[in-house]
Amino acid sequence: MPAEFTLTRRVQFAETDMAGILHFSNYYRLMEEAEHAFHRSLGLSVVMEYDGVPIGWPRVATSCEYSSPARFEEELEVRLRVASLGEKSLTYEVEFSSGGRRVAVGRMTAVCCAMREEAFEPVPIPRLFRERIEADGPRD
Amino acid sequence: MPAEFTLTRRVQFAETDMAGILHFSNYYRLMEEAEHAFHRSLGLSVVMEYDGVPIGWPRVATSCEYSSPARFEEELEVRLRVASLGEKSLTYEVEFSSGGRRVAVGRMTAVCCAMREEAFEPVPIPRLFRERIEADGPRD
Amino acid sequence: MPAEFTLTRRVQFAETDMAGILHFSNYYRLMEEAEHAFHRSLGLSVVMEYDGVPIGWPRVATSCEYSSPARFEEELEVRLRVASLGEKSLTYEVEFSSGGRRVAVGRMTAVCCAMREEAFEPVPIPRLFRERIEADGPRD
Amino acid sequence: MPAEFTLTRRVQFAETDMAGILHFSNYYRLMEEAEHAFHRSLGLSVVMEYDGVPIGWPRVATSCEYSSPARFEEELEVRLRVASLGEKSLTYEVEFSSGGRRVAVGRMTAVCCAMREEAFEPVPIPRLFRERIEADGPRD
Repeated sequence: MPAEFTLTRRVQFAETDMAGILHFSNYYRLMEEAEHAFHRSLGLSVVMEYDGVPIGWPRVATSCEYSSPARFEEELEVRLRVASLGEKSLTYEVEFSSGGRRVAVGRMTAVCCAMREEAFEPVPIPRLFRERIEADGPRD
Repeated sequence: MPAEFTLTRRVQFAETDMAGILHFSNYYRLMEEAEHAFHRSLGLSVVMEYDGVPIGWPRVATSCEYSSPARFEEELEVRLRVASLGEKSLTYEVEFSSGGRRVAVGRMTAVCCAMREEAFEPVPIPRLFRERIEADGPRD
Repeated sequence: MPAEFTLTRRVQFAETDMAGILHFSNYYRLMEEAEHAFHRSLGLSVVMEYDGVPIGWPRVATSCEYSSPARFEEELEVRLRVASLGEKSLTYEVEFSSGGRRVAVGRMTAVCCAMREEAFEPVPIPRLFRERIEADGPRD
Repeated sequence: MPAEFTLTRRVQFAETDMAGILHFSNYYRLMEEAEHAFHRSLGLSVVMEYDGVPIGWPRVATSCEYSSPARFEEELEVRLRVASLGEKSLTYEVEFSSGGRRVAVGRMTAVCCAMREEAFEPVPIPRLFRERIEADGPRD
């Protein structure tokens, strides 16, 4: 199974702002939608238990560089790939394009955590997730 | 303590859409912000335990009528009042205005629930909440 | 062409709130997404010119009744139909369900307007839009 | 006038997600709110004409590092300062804290643009803006 995933996603009206473009904060929501669809493509979920432990993926760092504005009803291609895979964290790189036009590129580093009520404790990435990621070979 | 509360809230850029106005869905977020500030004004919170039971207020019905668009950086006056108070539910009415101009009016009915993982069970409105609401007299 | 449209749409993580459910305000965004997909299904757009006039559809009234919470990754069926069609306005009714479970039902009344910088002027619904809607027969 | 601004901003319910924390994308909205309040503190606006030209500030790069989750009703201190000021662009650094606890730190680079319908043309930062910023001394 590949360590990448491409989501096609139309820009919605409520995601635009008065400048007539996709608001810059919404790129981060699209990165996350692609990440979650990627987990589903592996037969997993970003919210699930592994070996009886509820696992989540809080972010420690995110960034985005914007090349060209995206507009209402444009269909964006959101191409996510695992850029690096550590013991407890992983980094995604996400490219946004529209009809071959480069729109933006983002990065998102998430830490694998046991999710408890008041504290998120970093834990090794579950073997099952790693196996499915690595079926396509790690990226770093 | 009065069964009403007024919030002054500036329209933010990310809340506008490409038509240059406050997106219609965001009025519902403002109603909720006013509701939560109202709870705080009573010395309470919309997320708290009463007598050891975690209580929440899921909505069963919401509505809004829009009179005049609101624009970026406008300061809206969001005036919330308890329109009716039942055994397990209550209805807020919320008026939005800007410099005397009527912008919108909304309604929101919430049910008092014991919040458990998978089910929200309607329960009588806690006495403490009711007492603080009723200090100003019920509205229906 | 039918005066109705069904959108299938997965609940995204950022659309949930700390109660673990789709935030009530996001139903309105989903109604709008269904509306805009409906316009596209007619070969039109909610943001376009008819006879050289830029036309938009500001809302005058919206409402929603909630039956059952929707959760992360649920696939909602969002079924929109034209409930009534006036000279300058129309009302949609939107049913939300998930696997046969009724989730919510909403209504949205929009006015057809010539969109100018500072004022939105109600105008008769363009003939082209009406023809495509009415191909399936009006609903009221 | 200082080239910095501090906004105090309570975390709203709709900004949380099912993990019970401020969704990571919303930090970017808060950075922007602080930026716009900063413009207002200078007697200006992020949406205004300078010398008859409509000026806007599209982002070219944004980033955020997250140290500690923020929760519903927490009051965040959002401290924005101009980290560097170029000819046509500027970079803000934004620190988020809560009761002395470091929550996150972000950066946002915006380009000063003449805003036309379909294209945003980079232009020198208006003298008036620069003067007001520099009253406190540039930061780089």
